[in-house]
Amino acid sequence: MDVYEKALEKHEQWKGKLRTKVEAKVNDATDLTYAYTPGVAEPCRKIHEDKELAYKYTIKQNTIAVISDGSAVLGLGNIGPEAAMPVMEGKCVLFKEFGDVNAFPLVLDTQDADEIINTIKNIAPGLGGINLEDISSPRCVYIENKLKEMLDIPVFHDDQHGTAIVTVAALINALKLVKKEASDVKVVVSGAGAAGFSITKLLLDLGVKNIKVADSKGVINSSHIEGDNPVKKEIAKITNKEDFKGTLKEAMVGSDVFIGVSAPNIIDEEDIKNMNDDAIVFAMANPTPEIDYHVAKKAGARVVATGRSDFPNQINNVLAFPGIFKGALKKHAKAITEEMKMAAAKGLAAMIDEEKITEDYVIVSTFEENVADNVAEAVMKEVE
Amino acid sequence: MDVYEKALEKHEQWKGKLRTKVEAKVNDATDLTYAYTPGVAEPCRKIHEDKELAYKYTIKQNTIAVISDGSAVLGLGNIGPEAAMPVMEGKCVLFKEFGDVNAFPLVLDTQDADEIINTIKNIAPGLGGINLEDISSPRCVYIENKLKEMLDIPVFHDDQHGTAIVTVAALINALKLVKKEASDVKVVVSGAGAAGFSITKLLLDLGVKNIKVADSKGVINSSHIEGDNPVKKEIAKITNKEDFKGTLKEAMVGSDVFIGVSAPNIIDEEDIKNMNDDAIVFAMANPTPEIDYHVAKKAGARVVATGRSDFPNQINNVLAFPGIFKGALKKHAKAITEEMKMAAAKGLAAMIDEEKITEDYVIVSTFEENVADNVAEAVMKEVE
Repeated sequence: MDVYEKALEKHEQWKGKLRTKVEAKVNDATDLTYAYTPGVAEPCRKIHEDKELAYKYTIKQNTIAVISDGSAVLGLGNIGPEAAMPVMEGKCVLFKEFGDVNAFPLVLDTQDADEIINTIKNIAPGLGGINLEDISSPRCVYIENKLKEMLDIPVFHDDQHGTAIVTVAALINALKLVKKEASDVKVVVSGAGAAGFSITKLLLDLGVKNIKVADSKGVINSSHIEGDNPVKKEIAKITNKEDFKGTLKEAMVGSDVFIGVSAPNIIDEEDIKNMNDDAIVFAMANPTPEIDYHVAKKAGARVVATGRSDFPNQINNVLAFPGIFKGALKKHAKAITEEMKMAAAKGLAAMIDEEKITEDYVIVSTFEENVADNVAEAVMKEVE
Repeated sequence: MDVYEKALEKHEQWKGKLRTKVEAKVNDATDLTYAYTPGVAEPCRKIHEDKELAYKYTIKQNTIAVISDGSAVLGLGNIGPEAAMPVMEGKCVLFKEFGDVNAFPLVLDTQDADEIINTIKNIAPGLGGINLEDISSPRCVYIENKLKEMLDIPVFHDDQHGTAIVTVAALINALKLVKKEASDVKVVVSGAGAAGFSITKLLLDLGVKNIKVADSKGVINSSHIEGDNPVKKEIAKITNKEDFKGTLKEAMVGSDVFIGVSAPNIIDEEDIKNMNDDAIVFAMANPTPEIDYHVAKKAGARVVATGRSDFPNQINNVLAFPGIFKGALKKHAKAITEEMKMAAAKGLAAMIDEEKITEDYVIVSTFEENVADNVAEAVMKEVE
């Protein structure tokens, strides 16, 4: 039985991967008067006087929703809301298991960006945060930005920022190992979707100055500033200062860092050899990376990371999102800021002492202890 | 410390009355491949091929949402979404504790009926059912009807139908006790809101022919057919065949059954005395009934029921909604029909053997065993 058959069997046995659990047990009529009528009227009245008290008396303090329109689910594409549910439930499982964050899944019967925004705005008042998931690019960027403007709770599109945070954490340690400065390295990002965009912005925050981002047609350059895709437009504005025009492979010549969030096997040995010494290669396409781990190593890359658990240095966003929301909720944060994301990346990187960083250990692994707590602590320091 | 202070203290300690609980434990990397990537792709693919499989592989089979706009919360009125949360969480607690139905609460940042409808439609695909709660009348009737048309999962406004089902259950037994037939009795309903409307419809289904419904201005009659309130318009069409025009008190003269879902202390000893022998009085205004239990008894009412737990015959909708959704979910019901509601009422009534019915025991109490299972069984028989 392969992993897919086994997973199907397990899903049938689980009968859904989540349940509710009651914190306020109702064993007799007296319990009922506290958890429900008439006693419940009192926290209602208090919150009616002061909305902030929702954080004191309700699940707003420790509960979020994981929301998708099913438009870009895993590698499966636009499979719609019902079929997206197993992933969304899985995400809620990870929130609980890794961060003790209570999350429930919602999938949407619309793929219209403005209707998605309005629907999420309408269901927000009881929630402490919203994790957007598997919404296709560039709509996801627009949706997230609009919701951030409208809502006073954290809105976080994990496909963008989760990956970015863990990537930057791993890069911080990889750069320490090869003794290069962020401000000096030449970085090539393959993939100009939501994740590539968020990685690029966080790299700039880290102090990287030389970034080229390529889509399937080559490096994004000044010609994209007039284009239709708002994400590529923005990338054109903030990267590639020298206005290089050429292919991904051409851009890789003389680069120090390759970051792939794109497609399987799109670079090869030759490309790695064209990079500078002590090349850092993060090939994160799933399940097949931009270049095989062993091929990249053999071609001379010093540090290789992938999205896979069967190779060293797994860039897995489960290292980030549970701790980020845990920290944000503890502080009743109104948003997840760039500063909080960078703090999460640095907190995650700092879990490995400098002398313990090796080529095969630039990022902690998924099941190491206290990952979410470390991330949460770092994030909390950035909430005013 | 009174019940309100105590409830407030408890709410602070609970830190929200609900949590999520993980059914698919993730203890190691292998678990992760089943509950999340890559294995989760398989149930996604299966559901993409056949949406009905959502009931097999996801929480749709055992999970609903409890949704309110905070417009008519308990006796507190229009206190808005945040302040409604303690009640909605409490409702979810009751669903879990009494029916083992997983329910999570959502409160809405809109009180526009069409926007409420659209928002709920948009979040429905992952859910097995929707329990509407504390939405003001007559909007709630419009909202529920529209959603029933649009969605293929049960939509149930408990404030209307929960009360109606338990009321009819109690009435079935009370009529047995006094040896009167539903088709013969004269019933007066005080309250022409959502609950009064639903009770009226279910009484008609039970075979009651003579019903007068009064609002604060008197009995609803033919003059209301031209009115603005769609609920009262409908009541005017289906009740008061003789087109009686007069006050509530006048209507009560010579009646057999009084059902109050209206306001405290609006009828008195004299009104009870004006009723026929073996009068049945359900005075369910909360927390202060239309007439005090003891006053009604002293005035000669044979069976008196209230909404309170400190008197016999508590009409509490917790006797209905957990079992109704439990049964509906088990059968993957697409709606909760009039037949299912009547089956629930009859199932609930039948829990008391005819020879055990007494004046003070026409309805089972909240904490009796197997209530939800009995209701669920009865409901399931009505699902095709």
